[in-house]
Amino acid sequence: MNPIGAAALRTLAGNAGVEVIDQRLLPHELRWRALRNDADVERAIREMWLRGAPLIGAAAAFGLALALRDDASDAALASARLRLAAARPTAINLAWALDRVSGRVAPLAPAERAGAAWAEAMAIAAGDVATNSAIGDHGLALLRGIAASRTPNSGPLRVLTHCNAGSLATMGWGTATAPIYKAFAAGLPIEVWVDETRPRNQGASLTAWELGHARVPHRLVADNAGGHLMQQGKVDVVIVGCDRVAANGDVCNKVGTYLKALAARDNGVPFYVAMPLSTFDETVPDGAAIPIEERDSREVTHIVGCAEDGSVHEIRIAPLNTHAANPAFDVTPARLVSGLITEHGLVPAEAAALRALHAGA
Amino acid sequence: MNPIGAAALRTLAGNAGVEVIDQRLLPHELRWRALRNDADVERAIREMWLRGAPLIGAAAAFGLALALRDDASDAALASARLRLAAARPTAINLAWALDRVSGRVAPLAPAERAGAAWAEAMAIAAGDVATNSAIGDHGLALLRGIAASRTPNSGPLRVLTHCNAGSLATMGWGTATAPIYKAFAAGLPIEVWVDETRPRNQGASLTAWELGHARVPHRLVADNAGGHLMQQGKVDVVIVGCDRVAANGDVCNKVGTYLKALAARDNGVPFYVAMPLSTFDETVPDGAAIPIEERDSREVTHIVGCAEDGSVHEIRIAPLNTHAANPAFDVTPARLVSGLITEHGLVPAEAAALRALHAGA
Repeated sequence: MNPIGAAALRTLAGNAGVEVIDQRLLPHELRWRALRNDADVERAIREMWLRGAPLIGAAAAFGLALALRDDASDAALASARLRLAAARPTAINLAWALDRVSGRVAPLAPAERAGAAWAEAMAIAAGDVATNSAIGDHGLALLRGIAASRTPNSGPLRVLTHCNAGSLATMGWGTATAPIYKAFAAGLPIEVWVDETRPRNQGASLTAWELGHARVPHRLVADNAGGHLMQQGKVDVVIVGCDRVAANGDVCNKVGTYLKALAARDNGVPFYVAMPLSTFDETVPDGAAIPIEERDSREVTHIVGCAEDGSVHEIRIAPLNTHAANPAFDVTPARLVSGLITEHGLVPAEAAALRALHAGA
Repeated sequence: MNPIGAAALRTLAGNAGVEVIDQRLLPHELRWRALRNDADVERAIREMWLRGAPLIGAAAAFGLALALRDDASDAALASARLRLAAARPTAINLAWALDRVSGRVAPLAPAERAGAAWAEAMAIAAGDVATNSAIGDHGLALLRGIAASRTPNSGPLRVLTHCNAGSLATMGWGTATAPIYKAFAAGLPIEVWVDETRPRNQGASLTAWELGHARVPHRLVADNAGGHLMQQGKVDVVIVGCDRVAANGDVCNKVGTYLKALAARDNGVPFYVAMPLSTFDETVPDGAAIPIEERDSREVTHIVGCAEDGSVHEIRIAPLNTHAANPAFDVTPARLVSGLITEHGLVPAEAAALRALHAGA
């Protein structure tokens, strides 16, 4: 894996499928798994071998291409599209990528569809890297500005992030991590507070892992700690990713994001959302209209980790038969968002600005 | 263990010491451990076999009595008091209980000190039960009022709590749980959202365990979920305990409490703090003056749980050599607190009201 911004998905030779990092095994084991047909891709998305809205979108695009390789009929296209779209309910990129491939190939003769779909999936993947790189450039300018406004000699710029909107969630660079990687590469002194992100621990498992590989200074914290860190003046800026942004600028992201946004507002800490335009959903008027996935109770009551001897175990951390509620996302109201870092630059989390950006894109 | 409000500390026959539940082993094993001298008590407090401000206070009082049994000189009294006070830095009850025993026995002849100290420790323990029972009664009245203000037939009253301010943290009833236990005993339909409370998981390990034993309906949630639950209208009231309350009403409690207070305010959910008066510290003007304990990085990077076969393991959940920051408490500003539930009734989190209460007690 490259130190900065390498993807968690790569294509197999001969377009025979794709290979993805099984992120369920991180940070304890790095294992690539081949996905050779659309059912493999659907399963990998559903079971969260891969996750992260942009990566899910790209993977689904390849999945649709693989489905068309095996059956390029109108019926097969419609059916594969529906099945892949249902693999995860919240991420808008999934539907966006499937619509894009579908729209590209539907007018074509069946014999041309598989090749065109594969090319479109490749374009989506390349586009994601370019998008995230641009988000990184705009975010870097933002970070430079924040750094310049600080007291001289006050140490590295401290960025807090939640969940993993990193290279592992995209085809490269990450979204929330792109400004961090660009700043690090540019020599801007930076340190990252990594929220553990219970219950699936994407921060502890994935963000800490990829920042460690890239040698970006970071410290892990319990999700509970962020408010205290901000009260103590130890956070200069919060940057998170998003799964979907509503027409009014409300941001749906990993559960717990809203709590950090509240703390940022209460302490005068800027709170930014890295948002590829593909994450914008003008069809939902506000956050209340976004469906929130309720996941398995067991994700809260059990946890996977590595013993001293290197073996990986799942253990139970709650009393036997404890029932847990497990909403996977929450909505941060637009009023708490300092700005959206898009591939086209910084945008306020407001309906008019988002409409204009969307129309211009 | 009694279903409701039994203590996690009991005295040994012949005043030979005390026995405490080793809470580090919960919820997987219930083991009582004997503490036969003040060094045992100091270690048990330092290593968190027991925790919770009121229980720490009572245990320290017994510890001082045991020290005086072995050496009742002025020098031994001063030395034991200092050592016990240093076992945990944040909880004010520790110093309060030691001051109370010390003040009681210092004027006595050395030969009378051990017996008087033991009696004072017993009085502190009994007083804690009475205090918490009174907090429960006042809290029950509050809960009845909130329940009455809800739409009819809207299901059980939903209380969210953070950490464990339960019977396991006190000599009986708990503080934040006392209103819950009283409500449950009175037949008020109630359901508790139990915050997991990373990184030490006191919610998942202890609160879920004791509520389960008492058969109080509850559901565990990741700490990240509370804001979303409040946005969805699924929390009627938040009740937490506290480790120390400053003169101005700022509340120091388990890290993450502040985030829940922010979410409660943002969603119009009442946020109450169960506060035995012993937790009030008029010597600190505000929360910023309260020292916040920074604990071991390993508490964040490792976790203990139970495998399928019942064996208990510690596993690592972050990449090898990840460094974590681990502040154990945070401060909730008085402005976010709807009220303090004390043994003398409901009090606003304001300097004047707290001064009056303290002067009258």
